[in-house]
Amino acid sequence: MASQPFHGVLVPVLTPFTPSGEPDAGRFAAFCRWLLDQGAGGLSVFGTTSEANSMSGPERMALLDVLVEKGIPPEKLMPGVGACSVSEPASLARHAVDHGCGGVLMLPPFYYKGVSDDGIFAFISRVIDKVASPALRVYLYHIPPVAQVGFSLDLVGRLIEAYPATIVGLKDSSGDWSNTAALLDRFPGFAVFPGSEVFLLDALRKGGAGCITASGNVNVPGINKLYQNWQGPQADALQAEITTLRKALQDYPMVPALKRIVAHFRDDPDWAAVRPPLEPLSPAQSAALLADLAKLGFTLGEQPRSKAA
Amino acid sequence: MASQPFHGVLVPVLTPFTPSGEPDAGRFAAFCRWLLDQGAGGLSVFGTTSEANSMSGPERMALLDVLVEKGIPPEKLMPGVGACSVSEPASLARHAVDHGCGGVLMLPPFYYKGVSDDGIFAFISRVIDKVASPALRVYLYHIPPVAQVGFSLDLVGRLIEAYPATIVGLKDSSGDWSNTAALLDRFPGFAVFPGSEVFLLDALRKGGAGCITASGNVNVPGINKLYQNWQGPQADALQAEITTLRKALQDYPMVPALKRIVAHFRDDPDWAAVRPPLEPLSPAQSAALLADLAKLGFTLGEQPRSKAA
Repeated sequence: MASQPFHGVLVPVLTPFTPSGEPDAGRFAAFCRWLLDQGAGGLSVFGTTSEANSMSGPERMALLDVLVEKGIPPEKLMPGVGACSVSEPASLARHAVDHGCGGVLMLPPFYYKGVSDDGIFAFISRVIDKVASPALRVYLYHIPPVAQVGFSLDLVGRLIEAYPATIVGLKDSSGDWSNTAALLDRFPGFAVFPGSEVFLLDALRKGGAGCITASGNVNVPGINKLYQNWQGPQADALQAEITTLRKALQDYPMVPALKRIVAHFRDDPDWAAVRPPLEPLSPAQSAALLADLAKLGFTLGEQPRSKAA
Repeated sequence: MASQPFHGVLVPVLTPFTPSGEPDAGRFAAFCRWLLDQGAGGLSVFGTTSEANSMSGPERMALLDVLVEKGIPPEKLMPGVGACSVSEPASLARHAVDHGCGGVLMLPPFYYKGVSDDGIFAFISRVIDKVASPALRVYLYHIPPVAQVGFSLDLVGRLIEAYPATIVGLKDSSGDWSNTAALLDRFPGFAVFPGSEVFLLDALRKGGAGCITASGNVNVPGINKLYQNWQGPQADALQAEITTLRKALQDYPMVPALKRIVAHFRDDPDWAAVRPPLEPLSPAQSAALLADLAKLGFTLGEQPRSKAA
């Protein structure tokens, strides 16, 4: 098993867009810096929460170029490289490796449904062979509620066996704790990250590496407090606290809700913009969300409230 | 309602790959020519059956360039331009318009699930606005069994109303005749193509424009015979005949099965290659498929059997 570059609270970073709908690289880099300053263990930019699949490959690569130029440490970056054809994830992963990124997060091909493990194995295998770099570290991205296609336990085992130095971990966004637990039991040393902090303590107690969670965009400090103290006496209470916040968020469409929160607490309305097919929250949803958060005493702590951030 | 460039039996053309897995432009152009010679009313290259989503945008554009260079009439081409970000279908559609293609086939964005009609409307709308050409003719591609995201009747109506000269038709691969019938009832003059010849006669009787069907790759003559004679006394018998063949094919994974048939009757094993995540038929499946077809007396008629084809 290869060495593990990532631990702790990883954030699939929201992608800000300009009023004309273009990715806003400056705001993006500033937000990434802020997340790391708050204690994020890594940034899985270009995940589902990042609206990565609403951006072209060249758009994602241009954003990554800016992050590195602006001094975000590449070893802290785990860019998502998901796409449906072999050549696209291969190009994106090669670009990430060339920048020295700590790893990449790789979806299975998600257009065709009902495909076999053999077919997905062949796909991932061709991507890895095309990148052809010993520096490549792949984290499999299992998110069947969205991608519909996923990585079975057997397939994960076959991939680890075939590429032990490359296939080093998995983000489990199945929402199914029994799947996460089975991965942790079956593949010791393999870095398993549940896709929600709701399962963080349970995962850590079974050897999990941390979590990669959408709500990290607005709550790195809270989640990281549990990560840092999971063996302490307050662990269950800390878990309960972050679970409460997560569940409040889950009453709203996640990406627009997170962007609305950032827009509100940064006093920067442009942050709320999403790309179609996603839609911003309605004014009524926004008001309800902010009221729910106020009831929980939530604030987006220790961060700049000015547009110049 | 705009004039309708396509009628009859349209084929989502199989894409042949070389032994090293690259699109084989020469074989592809020859196959397109052969389909038109057999009576295809149009070629919806780069559809689901074409493994389009297993190819990058530049790969699809290079193949289209070759088709036009080799003299396939662009007005007979309806390239698929489906992708998840606004910029990709816009680039592909612009490229098709620049070649003078008769139309393009457009998927909804298919990564995010549970998105609203408003979100899909905004996506399609941005694509059309980006292409910004009065020559653009869009056929909506409704294939919920694969894409999971689709075009509701209300959304189709909104798009037609917003872009009456651009949104001119729809391929309905829902497999649900009641949806096709509702489209035909509600939008007279809008070109509705069921995604299977099983519904061809029913569709024609309600004003349908023809069909766009995977099995057209191996049965243009049979399906076209019904299309040409749908008002004649043999129509129901012709429908029964093509339905029997289609149902025999449906016992196998469609794309690998169609490629296997072409490989067999052309005596050209390379034709059977698919890109991952799809897989070729096993030897046992191949034998069973060919035996099933032999029982039906099927041959891939009037076509070259040599590799030089």
